[in-house]
Amino acid sequence: MAKAMVYLQSGGPTAVINSSLYGAIREAQKHEEISGIYGSLNGVEGLIQDDLIDLGEEEDETIELLKQTPGAILGTARYKMPSDLTDLRYEAICQTITNHNIGYVFVNGGNDSMDTCAKLAKLFAQQKIDCKVMGVPKTVDNDLAITDHCNGYGSAAKYVINITKDICVDAKCYKKGKVFIIEIMGRNAGWLTAAVDLLPYQMRPDLIYLPEDAFEMDAFLKDLKSIYDLKGHVIIAISEGIVFERDTSSTRIDAFGHIQLGGAADALATIVEKKLGLPTRSVELSLPQRADPVFISKTDQDEAIACGAFAVTSALKGETAKMVIIKRLSTKPYKTELALAPVEQVANAEKKVPTSMIAGKTHMDQSFRDYLLPLIQGEVYPKFKDGIYMTANLKKVKAR
Amino acid sequence: MAKAMVYLQSGGPTAVINSSLYGAIREAQKHEEISGIYGSLNGVEGLIQDDLIDLGEEEDETIELLKQTPGAILGTARYKMPSDLTDLRYEAICQTITNHNIGYVFVNGGNDSMDTCAKLAKLFAQQKIDCKVMGVPKTVDNDLAITDHCNGYGSAAKYVINITKDICVDAKCYKKGKVFIIEIMGRNAGWLTAAVDLLPYQMRPDLIYLPEDAFEMDAFLKDLKSIYDLKGHVIIAISEGIVFERDTSSTRIDAFGHIQLGGAADALATIVEKKLGLPTRSVELSLPQRADPVFISKTDQDEAIACGAFAVTSALKGETAKMVIIKRLSTKPYKTELALAPVEQVANAEKKVPTSMIAGKTHMDQSFRDYLLPLIQGEVYPKFKDGIYMTANLKKVKAR
Repeated sequence: MAKAMVYLQSGGPTAVINSSLYGAIREAQKHEEISGIYGSLNGVEGLIQDDLIDLGEEEDETIELLKQTPGAILGTARYKMPSDLTDLRYEAICQTITNHNIGYVFVNGGNDSMDTCAKLAKLFAQQKIDCKVMGVPKTVDNDLAITDHCNGYGSAAKYVINITKDICVDAKCYKKGKVFIIEIMGRNAGWLTAAVDLLPYQMRPDLIYLPEDAFEMDAFLKDLKSIYDLKGHVIIAISEGIVFERDTSSTRIDAFGHIQLGGAADALATIVEKKLGLPTRSVELSLPQRADPVFISKTDQDEAIACGAFAVTSALKGETAKMVIIKRLSTKPYKTELALAPVEQVANAEKKVPTSMIAGKTHMDQSFRDYLLPLIQGEVYPKFKDGIYMTANLKKVKAR
Repeated sequence: MAKAMVYLQSGGPTAVINSSLYGAIREAQKHEEISGIYGSLNGVEGLIQDDLIDLGEEEDETIELLKQTPGAILGTARYKMPSDLTDLRYEAICQTITNHNIGYVFVNGGNDSMDTCAKLAKLFAQQKIDCKVMGVPKTVDNDLAITDHCNGYGSAAKYVINITKDICVDAKCYKKGKVFIIEIMGRNAGWLTAAVDLLPYQMRPDLIYLPEDAFEMDAFLKDLKSIYDLKGHVIIAISEGIVFERDTSSTRIDAFGHIQLGGAADALATIVEKKLGLPTRSVELSLPQRADPVFISKTDQDEAIACGAFAVTSALKGETAKMVIIKRLSTKPYKTELALAPVEQVANAEKKVPTSMIAGKTHMDQSFRDYLLPLIQGEVYPKFKDGIYMTANLKKVKAR
């Protein structure tokens, strides 16, 4: 008997998060065993509140535009599901699943989302509900275990590299310039920050700091000063997650009296100005690094589409509680294949940049360059209308 | 007798600053009256120090790449020339001009650069040196008088609009989100900030603040709170130049004890968090808004090339102490023609956004939209190599 599928987006968006959705929809449309293609609004919240939309009602042009639409088109959530499967919310989810005759749940997300996948699979097994649960990898942080890399990382890396080039080229056209500290996403893993290493010499940051490496303030200030004296400007790339003692007199305190997270570049700039007296600006690359569609990597987009599709075909084969992973077969030429890994193995792990890939404060090891280079290849220019890139606009017809 | 020309870039770069240089070079190559095409390194400093390069020595491919190269390829400077024409630096400039048999000086810049143009023209007249001086307009701030708009503004506006769309689309996919304060360039003129008004409703900032309008803190906090309560997130676009009383306990003090300029969004975020207790992030669009080549407007690029070329043909006709201006003949359809204005008239004026174009805190008047829309039209995708956009790399052969 044909059953419906429901697709969830979870955690922080990526530039290709909706490309995976596109891949899943296009694959599902080929299979008569799938009686309906639904989207859950705001991740697992949509399942709890029976807030599902019927993606079969959307125009073909809207589905095509998903590939260049940033943000999570279905809405996202950071929602930690409880371990106790008797929690009322799980009862609500089971209601939604049976009400809509759903046989396939797809969760597109990172570690936490894979934890949700694991819990849902356990719940359905326990409640004897015949519903498969599949994970689709997604995170610009690239910190998911087992998979060679994550959908979204290549495009974010490409954005970071190219926008950092903008900053370097602009800043370096002054004889006597400033210190620029660029803050890049990645709280515990420096994959995105490391990406700037692919820029050619003279058009790249002079210093690179990842959270995997201890940050030593004295050495940092000394290195910065030498470079400034030599070149008249310094560009520094840091992960948002590097740890140092902040100057609390200038640290932002939030409404609850906590020191605000993020703003590492700003905090560091304050210290540089105070200790070295050099004109310093902080630049936080912020949301566009995980959103902008103009720097989407074709490789990343193709893989995101393929992972969405592979999740569907795998679920139809009876797989459950698995996440799609990308296996790299070779780097030169770049060859991969898709496979599956148990979601539980992904949920409780975090993949950091290995020490072997870090060569020092100024550059990465060649093994890192070889790893990243294929992931940023190929341009996919979005369609524009009146000077602004177009995005999909869902009708959001409620699922019956 | 044929004479050489020298080209200067001055002030802050734009995404199309090197397109104007391209236009001037390509035009000059057509005229036998021009015996050499030189570039002055770091603006007027190159003239003073006889630091000129021979652009005729560059490869054709390099010249083509100028159109997608951010930053000022010749190097730039913020250098205020003295009013006293007996200053030794003017003597040095006269030496450089006669040494290299230069008959044409082109200065690509904003108000200050036009002031330099005026002084050089006066100097050459006084010293009876037959050398024409022409200005080419350039500034993302769009604050030059007389010309309808400035080369560089359209591309910067296009960047600001599209990157702000990224932020809006990403931020709004959370049910309960944050307050985002986006800081956009323009110290005294809000042309760039106003540009976000071209975004469609639901994908645009909720509030827009220009320096032309008085900023009232109480009304701002009240409006922000109402929107947050209603929507669960607020996106605010501010000009870097808006004036408000900063919370000095959290303001960055520079090495000389001065309160650091810029960082308006950050200062405002601190106040919002303290007064309203809402999670707030500041996003300074920073250098990429005047540099990134991926959002270059074809209209802006074509005009920048045409202005560079028009400066050359005008100088050959004997014009001096004039700046190229763009005259808008009609908006629908968009039609312009190039003309000339005395540099002195441009040097001492600043064009702000007229009150008639500002409709309130949430949007601009239709007249502003009609004004800006044609300036962001047309995409020019840069050439990429290995996932990174290509840039021109000058050989910099010293001019003989």
